[in-house]
Amino acid sequence: MSRYPAPEIKDLPDDIRAKVLEVQEKAGFVPNVFLAFARRPAEWRAFFAYHDALMVPESVGRTSNLTKGDREMIVTATSAANNCLYCVVAHGAILRIRAKNPRVADQLATNYRKAEITPRQRAMLDFAMKLALDSGAVGDEDIAAVKAHGFDDEAVWDIGAITAFFAMSNRLANLTGMRPNDEFFLMGRLPKA
Amino acid sequence: MSRYPAPEIKDLPDDIRAKVLEVQEKAGFVPNVFLAFARRPAEWRAFFAYHDALMVPESVGRTSNLTKGDREMIVTATSAANNCLYCVVAHGAILRIRAKNPRVADQLATNYRKAEITPRQRAMLDFAMKLALDSGAVGDEDIAAVKAHGFDDEAVWDIGAITAFFAMSNRLANLTGMRPNDEFFLMGRLPKA
Amino acid sequence: MSRYPAPEIKDLPDDIRAKVLEVQEKAGFVPNVFLAFARRPAEWRAFFAYHDALMVPESVGRTSNLTKGDREMIVTATSAANNCLYCVVAHGAILRIRAKNPRVADQLATNYRKAEITPRQRAMLDFAMKLALDSGAVGDEDIAAVKAHGFDDEAVWDIGAITAFFAMSNRLANLTGMRPNDEFFLMGRLPKA
Amino acid sequence: MSRYPAPEIKDLPDDIRAKVLEVQEKAGFVPNVFLAFARRPAEWRAFFAYHDALMVPESVGRTSNLTKGDREMIVTATSAANNCLYCVVAHGAILRIRAKNPRVADQLATNYRKAEITPRQRAMLDFAMKLALDSGAVGDEDIAAVKAHGFDDEAVWDIGAITAFFAMSNRLANLTGMRPNDEFFLMGRLPKA
Amino acid sequence: MSRYPAPEIKDLPDDIRAKVLEVQEKAGFVPNVFLAFARRPAEWRAFFAYHDALMVPESVGRTSNLTKGDREMIVTATSAANNCLYCVVAHGAILRIRAKNPRVADQLATNYRKAEITPRQRAMLDFAMKLALDSGAVGDEDIAAVKAHGFDDEAVWDIGAITAFFAMSNRLANLTGMRPNDEFFLMGRLPKA
Amino acid sequence: MSRYPAPEIKDLPDDIRAKVLEVQEKAGFVPNVFLAFARRPAEWRAFFAYHDALMVPESVGRTSNLTKGDREMIVTATSAANNCLYCVVAHGAILRIRAKNPRVADQLATNYRKAEITPRQRAMLDFAMKLALDSGAVGDEDIAAVKAHGFDDEAVWDIGAITAFFAMSNRLANLTGMRPNDEFFLMGRLPKA
Repeated sequence: MSRYPAPEIKDLPDDIRAKVLEVQEKAGFVPNVFLAFARRPAEWRAFFAYHDALMVPESVGRTSNLTKGDREMIVTATSAANNCLYCVVAHGAILRIRAKNPRVADQLATNYRKAEITPRQRAMLDFAMKLALDSGAVGDEDIAAVKAHGFDDEAVWDIGAITAFFAMSNRLANLTGMRPNDEFFLMGRLPKA
Repeated sequence: MSRYPAPEIKDLPDDIRAKVLEVQEKAGFVPNVFLAFARRPAEWRAFFAYHDALMVPESVGRTSNLTKGDREMIVTATSAANNCLYCVVAHGAILRIRAKNPRVADQLATNYRKAEITPRQRAMLDFAMKLALDSGAVGDEDIAAVKAHGFDDEAVWDIGAITAFFAMSNRLANLTGMRPNDEFFLMGRLPKA
Repeated sequence: MSRYPAPEIKDLPDDIRAKVLEVQEKAGFVPNVFLAFARRPAEWRAFFAYHDALMVPESVGRTSNLTKGDREMIVTATSAANNCLYCVVAHGAILRIRAKNPRVADQLATNYRKAEITPRQRAMLDFAMKLALDSGAVGDEDIAAVKAHGFDDEAVWDIGAITAFFAMSNRLANLTGMRPNDEFFLMGRLPKA
Repeated sequence: MSRYPAPEIKDLPDDIRAKVLEVQEKAGFVPNVFLAFARRPAEWRAFFAYHDALMVPESVGRTSNLTKGDREMIVTATSAANNCLYCVVAHGAILRIRAKNPRVADQLATNYRKAEITPRQRAMLDFAMKLALDSGAVGDEDIAAVKAHGFDDEAVWDIGAITAFFAMSNRLANLTGMRPNDEFFLMGRLPKA
Repeated sequence: MSRYPAPEIKDLPDDIRAKVLEVQEKAGFVPNVFLAFARRPAEWRAFFAYHDALMVPESVGRTSNLTKGDREMIVTATSAANNCLYCVVAHGAILRIRAKNPRVADQLATNYRKAEITPRQRAMLDFAMKLALDSGAVGDEDIAAVKAHGFDDEAVWDIGAITAFFAMSNRLANLTGMRPNDEFFLMGRLPKA
Repeated sequence: MSRYPAPEIKDLPDDIRAKVLEVQEKAGFVPNVFLAFARRPAEWRAFFAYHDALMVPESVGRTSNLTKGDREMIVTATSAANNCLYCVVAHGAILRIRAKNPRVADQLATNYRKAEITPRQRAMLDFAMKLALDSGAVGDEDIAAVKAHGFDDEAVWDIGAITAFFAMSNRLANLTGMRPNDEFFLMGRLPKA
């Protein structure tokens, strides 16, 4: 699964095991990231707390100007720029489901400029990609450009913080050589029966 | 302090205010990151929990093969590569203190290859810099190269995870335009009286 | 389909229409490249003659040291490096079928270094990627490195010429903004019934 | 002449030998590309058919908005960006003759922005260079910019397709280590007697 | 001090020794560059003559539109872009003194876009950085942009020539591995007593 | 001739005018750099003193392990990497004469790895190019690699200092938009009558 052996579910701390089993129940399998990062429980807890605060804002009592699909688009496009196999495949799968579009994840992963997205989403991704790839050059003019598409201060924070969080995740996945579960490759590609 | 207004200390949630006051007590001032990120309490809690799990391993009951100075070297060198003003100045200050060397932070921030460090630290930073700048190209040969200098699996994880965490922090600081407190610029530059 | 209107099948020159109908018969649809490039019949004929000479060597009375899967791997990996949506999606589909592996195309498109391939294929792609991205730096030592994995002079020519041909195709697709047919996205992802 | 031994003229297939002798008659020597690529007759035929369709449009019953000099400028400038010795020297020679200017090839090969060319040619080369070096980023705004200088849809296709064809040629020449004939270095540098 | 042994002061040619002693008198120590480059007296004389003509214009009977602080800003920012430890540390020290600002050198060395400088200085540094990093792409539009901030022809020459001179100095320092004197690290950081 | 008007020969300071007339006598024309830089006499004097100390070592009583041809090769190759039209054309001409080879300058300017040079010259240029393009990464291993080809400490200094000097010259030429004299394009291309 990765360069580091993953713990077995039965050996996990209670709170982590409970979350893992909940995800398994819901998804039908345990995404590798839940086990690969569990070698270090304190880091696991912080990682998923941060992830949920950004990707599931309602879990922390917050609403967001970004849709679920928007968030996964940011993850997929910036993770592709970072050549992160796990994140592109896993979040590409989630994006297909969230956006109800079986093509958009592959499009974003190859060339976000050619994807079937709105001009607003294009502006969102232009900003995210610049922050991902050359964050020191991000200036007020970049923030103004994305705001011109209707993103407010909080939405800009969301775009930027998701990009930043996955800058970390991508490097963790590339550090550990974490592989995506086989299940992700096909998820969201077929019409619901 | 940053593109986003920071909350006042008195308006912070209790747990965050307590931590902020504790830091203020110890350092003599409140580093801007503690207030700038407090606009979003859930993210703040995850950020600092993650930070402490990596940078203060004993706080989560773990020991590490890396010294305090090693850790700050990783932060300073990779943050410079990401042109992150806050992180270079703030962690450069901490590095001067931890390493008891008033020059090494400026050296690492300009060119880590020319710094007064050991060959082991050079190997550590070669690995961290590759992960910071081109993580998709990190391969088993890079891990073998750093292990050849005596870093074990856990130490490699530490180097990589600290690099990854600051890949995130650097982007958050560049997103918000967060500035370092004036105090950091001089810290650790003078011999203790 | 692209920035340039494609001709209708009925208006094509006889030889081109015959080939298009043959492909349609076999694949169940007409891949967009066959129509998009048919605006210019002389270029179309040269393009497909070249394509077939490299990708279907037996069509010109030649055998090759590369398997069909090898060839499509080169196309998928180098086209991803060139951010070519059409080529990654269309040839990724063909690769899934040729390699009888529903995951390898997405892996190669994201990070060829992390794909489920043999060391020989990895050496083949290291060479192809260097030629795709920095051909002026290719030297005798690169050729020796790929030959060390059992590729002979003709196989090296094949790897290089396929890479070169798709350096052209990728730029033509990006010039015209050619989009992949929807059919390609799912091809080769499901086990044969 | 190159990493691969070239066939002798007497051993070439009839159609290729006829073309080679025709070129020799006209130029006074056989440019190396005609022999180096003849090891593979099917590829040779496709290569030169494609070349002529783009570089000698009247040979396929087409006219073009680009002059002969324009076309060679695209080849020289983009081949220099790809560090292709054969193409810069051979097509630089042809450019000197076509443009009746003994300096412009060296100027374009060193820095196309400083060459003695018209603003229209500068716009043409800006477009060609972006397609050569970062084709995935070419967007509608780039096409609009070149059209603003009077290039129509067909001329844009010409610029782009020539750039794409030489993206292939440059990589083939760098793959094979093909060297330019000595004759090219001086061609077009002296006033006609 | 560097990869090359430096001569001793007593062994220097008279004119060089006089200058070295004068600098020592003034600064309280001999900056390493004065000894490291003295191995080659003819080059030393040309280097410092050039340096003074640009950095101390009044020494050659010239006035300049740039302040002393402006000049040191150019040196510090472009030397950081070239990862030159000696120049960043030594000229950063001089900048702190000239600009009477203990923070601006560290800011410029990390990310000149985030420094406490005027819009005029930002335009000056945008121009200097482009010339330092991609001089072949500098065009009339870049010169117009910097002139729009009130720099005249002579000031543009000054910005450019200082950038060019330190492009040389940075490479000389990186060639010789020249280290900054310890004294520079603290200079200009403390309020004058 | 350049973005800045050049002074007339008659208006030059005596020492500069003498040198200019001497060059004109010898070459048959005045290379533009002699007039373009004469707007600033103090800089002119330092520039040519430095140039001669490096490029004409016997003028300062020094011998060098590098041949005249070696020195011009360094200038031509690194100036091409910096897209400096003046330096590539002018020094390419001198190189043709010094090396008595009408092809080598065009080869080096396009791709130094493909030029007709010795392995020793290739090692010299590998070192020069790294110093030109990424001087901060030059380390002891690079110096050892060039020394392995028989260059001693002084020769390494020569290679590096010439590279550094032209890093400056290239930027000055690109700053001023200085153009090469027409005479240079043909110099050294014809056999001596």
